[in-house]
Amino acid sequence: MQGQSQQQAYDRGNTIFSPDGRLYQVEYAREAVKRGTASVGLLTPDGVVLAANRQVSSSLMERSSVEKIHTVDDHIGIASAGHVADARQLVDLARRRAQGEQLRYGQRIGVETLTRSITDHIQEYTQTGGARPFGVALLVGGIENGEPRLFETDPSGTDYEWQAAAVGGDRDVIQDYLEENYRTDFDVDGGIELAVSALSAPTDGVVAAEDVDVATITTDDESLQSVSNDRLESILADVDEDGADE
Amino acid sequence: MQGQSQQQAYDRGNTIFSPDGRLYQVEYAREAVKRGTASVGLLTPDGVVLAANRQVSSSLMERSSVEKIHTVDDHIGIASAGHVADARQLVDLARRRAQGEQLRYGQRIGVETLTRSITDHIQEYTQTGGARPFGVALLVGGIENGEPRLFETDPSGTDYEWQAAAVGGDRDVIQDYLEENYRTDFDVDGGIELAVSALSAPTDGVVAAEDVDVATITTDDESLQSVSNDRLESILADVDEDGADE
Amino acid sequence: MQGQSQQQAYDRGNTIFSPDGRLYQVEYAREAVKRGTASVGLLTPDGVVLAANRQVSSSLMERSSVEKIHTVDDHIGIASAGHVADARQLVDLARRRAQGEQLRYGQRIGVETLTRSITDHIQEYTQTGGARPFGVALLVGGIENGEPRLFETDPSGTDYEWQAAAVGGDRDVIQDYLEENYRTDFDVDGGIELAVSALSAPTDGVVAAEDVDVATITTDDESLQSVSNDRLESILADVDEDGADE
Amino acid sequence: MQGQSQQQAYDRGNTIFSPDGRLYQVEYAREAVKRGTASVGLLTPDGVVLAANRQVSSSLMERSSVEKIHTVDDHIGIASAGHVADARQLVDLARRRAQGEQLRYGQRIGVETLTRSITDHIQEYTQTGGARPFGVALLVGGIENGEPRLFETDPSGTDYEWQAAAVGGDRDVIQDYLEENYRTDFDVDGGIELAVSALSAPTDGVVAAEDVDVATITTDDESLQSVSNDRLESILADVDEDGADE
Amino acid sequence: MQGQSQQQAYDRGNTIFSPDGRLYQVEYAREAVKRGTASVGLLTPDGVVLAANRQVSSSLMERSSVEKIHTVDDHIGIASAGHVADARQLVDLARRRAQGEQLRYGQRIGVETLTRSITDHIQEYTQTGGARPFGVALLVGGIENGEPRLFETDPSGTDYEWQAAAVGGDRDVIQDYLEENYRTDFDVDGGIELAVSALSAPTDGVVAAEDVDVATITTDDESLQSVSNDRLESILADVDEDGADE
Amino acid sequence: MQGQSQQQAYDRGNTIFSPDGRLYQVEYAREAVKRGTASVGLLTPDGVVLAANRQVSSSLMERSSVEKIHTVDDHIGIASAGHVADARQLVDLARRRAQGEQLRYGQRIGVETLTRSITDHIQEYTQTGGARPFGVALLVGGIENGEPRLFETDPSGTDYEWQAAAVGGDRDVIQDYLEENYRTDFDVDGGIELAVSALSAPTDGVVAAEDVDVATITTDDESLQSVSNDRLESILADVDEDGADE
Amino acid sequence: MQGQSQQQAYDRGNTIFSPDGRLYQVEYAREAVKRGTASVGLLTPDGVVLAANRQVSSSLMERSSVEKIHTVDDHIGIASAGHVADARQLVDLARRRAQGEQLRYGQRIGVETLTRSITDHIQEYTQTGGARPFGVALLVGGIENGEPRLFETDPSGTDYEWQAAAVGGDRDVIQDYLEENYRTDFDVDGGIELAVSALSAPTDGVVAAEDVDVATITTDDESLQSVSNDRLESILADVDEDGADE
Repeated sequence: MQGQSQQQAYDRGNTIFSPDGRLYQVEYAREAVKRGTASVGLLTPDGVVLAANRQVSSSLMERSSVEKIHTVDDHIGIASAGHVADARQLVDLARRRAQGEQLRYGQRIGVETLTRSITDHIQEYTQTGGARPFGVALLVGGIENGEPRLFETDPSGTDYEWQAAAVGGDRDVIQDYLEENYRTDFDVDGGIELAVSALSAPTDGVVAAEDVDVATITTDDESLQSVSNDRLESILADVDEDGADE
Repeated sequence: MQGQSQQQAYDRGNTIFSPDGRLYQVEYAREAVKRGTASVGLLTPDGVVLAANRQVSSSLMERSSVEKIHTVDDHIGIASAGHVADARQLVDLARRRAQGEQLRYGQRIGVETLTRSITDHIQEYTQTGGARPFGVALLVGGIENGEPRLFETDPSGTDYEWQAAAVGGDRDVIQDYLEENYRTDFDVDGGIELAVSALSAPTDGVVAAEDVDVATITTDDESLQSVSNDRLESILADVDEDGADE
Repeated sequence: MQGQSQQQAYDRGNTIFSPDGRLYQVEYAREAVKRGTASVGLLTPDGVVLAANRQVSSSLMERSSVEKIHTVDDHIGIASAGHVADARQLVDLARRRAQGEQLRYGQRIGVETLTRSITDHIQEYTQTGGARPFGVALLVGGIENGEPRLFETDPSGTDYEWQAAAVGGDRDVIQDYLEENYRTDFDVDGGIELAVSALSAPTDGVVAAEDVDVATITTDDESLQSVSNDRLESILADVDEDGADE
Repeated sequence: MQGQSQQQAYDRGNTIFSPDGRLYQVEYAREAVKRGTASVGLLTPDGVVLAANRQVSSSLMERSSVEKIHTVDDHIGIASAGHVADARQLVDLARRRAQGEQLRYGQRIGVETLTRSITDHIQEYTQTGGARPFGVALLVGGIENGEPRLFETDPSGTDYEWQAAAVGGDRDVIQDYLEENYRTDFDVDGGIELAVSALSAPTDGVVAAEDVDVATITTDDESLQSVSNDRLESILADVDEDGADE
Repeated sequence: MQGQSQQQAYDRGNTIFSPDGRLYQVEYAREAVKRGTASVGLLTPDGVVLAANRQVSSSLMERSSVEKIHTVDDHIGIASAGHVADARQLVDLARRRAQGEQLRYGQRIGVETLTRSITDHIQEYTQTGGARPFGVALLVGGIENGEPRLFETDPSGTDYEWQAAAVGGDRDVIQDYLEENYRTDFDVDGGIELAVSALSAPTDGVVAAEDVDVATITTDDESLQSVSNDRLESILADVDEDGADE
Repeated sequence: MQGQSQQQAYDRGNTIFSPDGRLYQVEYAREAVKRGTASVGLLTPDGVVLAANRQVSSSLMERSSVEKIHTVDDHIGIASAGHVADARQLVDLARRRAQGEQLRYGQRIGVETLTRSITDHIQEYTQTGGARPFGVALLVGGIENGEPRLFETDPSGTDYEWQAAAVGGDRDVIQDYLEENYRTDFDVDGGIELAVSALSAPTDGVVAAEDVDVATITTDDESLQSVSNDRLESILADVDEDGADE
Repeated sequence: MQGQSQQQAYDRGNTIFSPDGRLYQVEYAREAVKRGTASVGLLTPDGVVLAANRQVSSSLMERSSVEKIHTVDDHIGIASAGHVADARQLVDLARRRAQGEQLRYGQRIGVETLTRSITDHIQEYTQTGGARPFGVALLVGGIENGEPRLFETDPSGTDYEWQAAAVGGDRDVIQDYLEENYRTDFDVDGGIELAVSALSAPTDGVVAAEDVDVATITTDDESLQSVSNDRLESILADVDEDGADE
């Protein structure tokens, strides 16, 4: 009780630290991320794989409209988890930045540079009054100087670079799965397989191809490609043939 | 009690997350949507059907003034549920955007592009202080590249694409009805029939033609047409003849 | 008690929904409307009749200064109920809009267009912080394309089109009276008679000619005309001769 | 108790209605008016009379500095009651408006037009946050098209036109006195006599000439003239001669 | 208790009236004035005398830096009481206004005009949020059209014209003394003597010449002159010779 | 208890007076000054001496970085006590003002003029919402027209001129010491000796040369000179030789 | 209890002092610094050493992305502790300032000048409403005029110059270790060794080379160089050979 009322004294504004130096609103925004379905990103030597659970609440909903993976530029994609409308704002910001780089300097924006401009924007919403933090985590993946790279943004405005990472609901289980099963010698198909398996980890079963959204950006063509249902089913079938991949 | 006072600590502002990552004001705005009469939208191969209950509180009120279906551009219409004046603001925004597209690029705005510009506006009202969320849900239907499309916007600023969807009071009952009875091979009359039947579902009776507002946009002429009372009655009569359509 | 304190938690700001999706400040503004004396508007085939109770607190007050019916443009008038100074703000807005239309396009503003520009203004005051809703309801009547039209604006920013409507104190009683007695074949004098009778309904007596302010806009001259005391008395006398009109 | 705490929940801001549709801050501003000494205005066929009690707290204070009657333009004066500094702001506003009319259109501003521009200003302070209402009531008197006219402004931003009116402390007693004794056939001296008698009504004695400030604007010269102490005493002496005027 | 908690409900903001129409923050600012040492101003036929107590908290403080009498323009001075830094803001404002008058119109600003521009500024701080009233009262004395004039400004933004007035701590005692002893036939030395005696009234003794700051502006040279310690002692000595002036 | 809760009702904002006319936030800012180590300033016929305690929390900290004495212009220095970062803001302001004077008028800014521009800035932070007062007191010393002058600024925005003054922790003890021991015939070395002795007064011992920062501005070269450790030790040695200076 | 509720009365805003002159939000921001892993900086005759703990939460995270040491300009680096995203904002500010100096004056910015521009920015966030302090401490190290210099910035906006300093978690233990073991005759390798040993002090073991990020700026090349893992291991191996360095 004491602890709770103590916490409530400091948790209703961006512009307030608690006595132990915490920013509760940022921590609550992380809870908003956990309320969303998970997304996964990982690197292979040949590219980046982004994958996301896609829960559709009705058979009449267009599956494609539950957008979890967004193209930012040819060579960069973003997978998101958390508050959907907040994610769209940040993706729009990312697209404007990528276009700006193209227009001003005639070149593709770097994955790290892009991520920083997103996290700078996120940070401002954690320090200024009259707003709330973004309730979303992003996985920003792309090719930079021929190398695949993957970044995570969190609601505090911090970014982390990963070989393989999960955001959203059941993140801990999925991340554990990734740490156990990630290998640096995967080909892209192997990466897709791992990403989907990881998303399935919390439910102890292989997720159906139609319930997952997968995209890749390879160093070959440096262009985000959605993975078709057919290809996905064929990859997942291989998993079953090969026996338990888990 | 505990739960309620806990909730009350976080539910009075746009710029505040609850400890479990919820935005209560957005959830309350969804309740405002449920207080409104229902609207339905659905796709047929040949077009989009929008239908809305029209409750008139007095026999002296002009039925047409209880506006639930709005023309945005020739090829796009919006059906709304919830706070009426909020809906008009968003419809006005949509019209300005459609006109702007026409003026700047000399072309019709896409249904998805238009929806996004609406939901971006809605999202801003969920993250900034000194305002409240929009208490309204919209069904945006139209023809894009010859194909009928239908989107829903919700008070969080999220959009969903649907084959058939309901918003407003008794939404769950109506959506269930749509899921059971929707077929992809309807002609437009069949779509109108289903839309009106769905609106009748919560009350176990066929709604009177005069109590419902229906409009269609077909791929033929790409132009929103109000369905006249006569045509509506004739379609509904066919239903009765054919036996229980329910 | 519970209910009341529950309500009090959400009723002190424009920018806040209650858990059941209500905007209490807008509802309280409607109470401000009820605190005002009533106004009535109705359509006849030949024109619009606006009528308003005019309570004068002292014999030394100039009766004409208790202004309830306002000329907006030649062809449009507004009757108001509620907070007097708020009404004047909206009437001034309406006048500026009508003049703007004349200046920019050289034409008379439509009754519906004018009403919408008023309700848009009203809606903004229900969604933005640092202000309160307008505590006033208006009846906007006029001739558009040769047809008489009548709209109501309410404090939420919603508008309704009517054949006959009442706003302000005892609205329910007066509206019931209108619904019982309104006929579409009234001539203007019949309309005036009904309007004044309706205003008298809550008090079970015919209101004195001097306590009521009546104006008409006919399709003939499309110009708002105040009805003189003499003409009013003569019309009301006819009522008495014809027997109880009630 | 209940009632009071109920009231306190809604009485601390301009931008808030109480559940019964009242604006408490405006009502409290009316109390500020009652805290001031009274002013009286009245019309005679030949002009306007403004009169005000002038309480001087020390024999060393310059009587003229307790300003209750202000010249706005040659043909318009204002008598005030309530918060003195607030009154000066509104009088300054009135003067700027009158000068603007002269500069822009080369003509004298009308008494009604001037009053409206004052009450519009007052109304804004009742609807916007970050301010308080004006704690003052004004009597605006002047000649317009050869006719004497008299308006009152109240803290809500409402204006009323009067033949004779009082504002400020003991307003009710003074207004009753005016209603009993006002006649439309007074000459200006008769008007002055009534105004001063009315101001004396609450104290059951004829106020001393030096404790009252009186000015007239006649249709003859359309110019505000202060009534000298001598003339005032002579008029009041006539009263005594004529017997009790009360 | 009741009364106090009642008061506390309304006393923490400029933009709020209490239920009985009071502005508590303005009243509290008047208390800030009373916390300051007193100042006195008075008129003689030949000029204005301003005098102020000067309390120095340490023998090492430069007596002149406890500034209570300020030159605004050659012909106008201000004596202050209350919050010292607030006074300096208003004096600076007064100086800028006086210079502006000189620059724009090539003439000396009038004492009344100057006072009004100060009180207008003060009033704004009593009606707008996000600020507090000025905790200072000023005595503005000077020569206008050859006549000595003296005004007081109070924290509400009201101004009063005086023959002789006191502001600050023990104001009531000092003002009583002035009312008893002020004569209109003083020469300037007599005025100085009275001013200093009045300042001594609360302590039942003649204040030491070094503890008082005195200045005069005579109609002869229309220029503010500080009264030297020597002259002051000589005048006060005369008092002693003449016997108890008290 | 009563007193405390009474105080708490009025002590949380710049824009609020307490019922007895106090500005608590300004008083609390004075407490912030007392939390800082002390600084001393004093005048000799030949110059100004500024001295400050310099507490270093670690042997690894650069002594010079605990800056208590700041050069504003060649001829003006500032010693501070209280919130260090606040002091730097005011010193920066002072430097910009001094440079501006040089640039605009080609002359050195006066000590009094400079002090006033600082205290004006400080005052604004005591009257405006959305900020807090400066938690710092400054001693501004310099040469003006060949004369040494010394001013103090306090958190209310008041300035005082001194012959010798202390600010910061233990100010009362140090000021008492100064009042007892200050003589107007000191040479600069005597002034330095007194300043350091005064700083030592609260601890009953002579402060070590390395724990104090001393600077002088003499009328000879009108240039702020830091007093070297060697010179300081030699002066303090003289004190010991001369016997207890205390 | 009393103390805590007392504290809570003053700890929720930047713009409020507590009765004892403290700024609680700044103190809480210092707690945010302590929640971060530690960083160390120290000077040797030949250069500056910056070292930081680098905790990586997952084996899949790119170690380099947990950025604790940032290059500002060739000759200046920053090590941070506390809120990561806040640190990035200040580092970005530092980079813009360094580039500005280069562009405007064609020269490298000084370490002290740069630090001041950072702490000025930090201070503003402690005095203005609508924001929170920066929850970060920085160690700014670089070469200025051929000399190595090291500054600390704290959340109040104060800066300190050090020979060797620690910020972040366990700062006290690490600083004690530095004070015991720092010598002014270290070569750069010795400095690196001490820095890493100090970081290990709280855990009683030598930190692994991979868990620490070290960079140097030497007076030779005035260019920040990251210390490679190999070199670090070799230096730390020397430590082990030489026996316990602790």
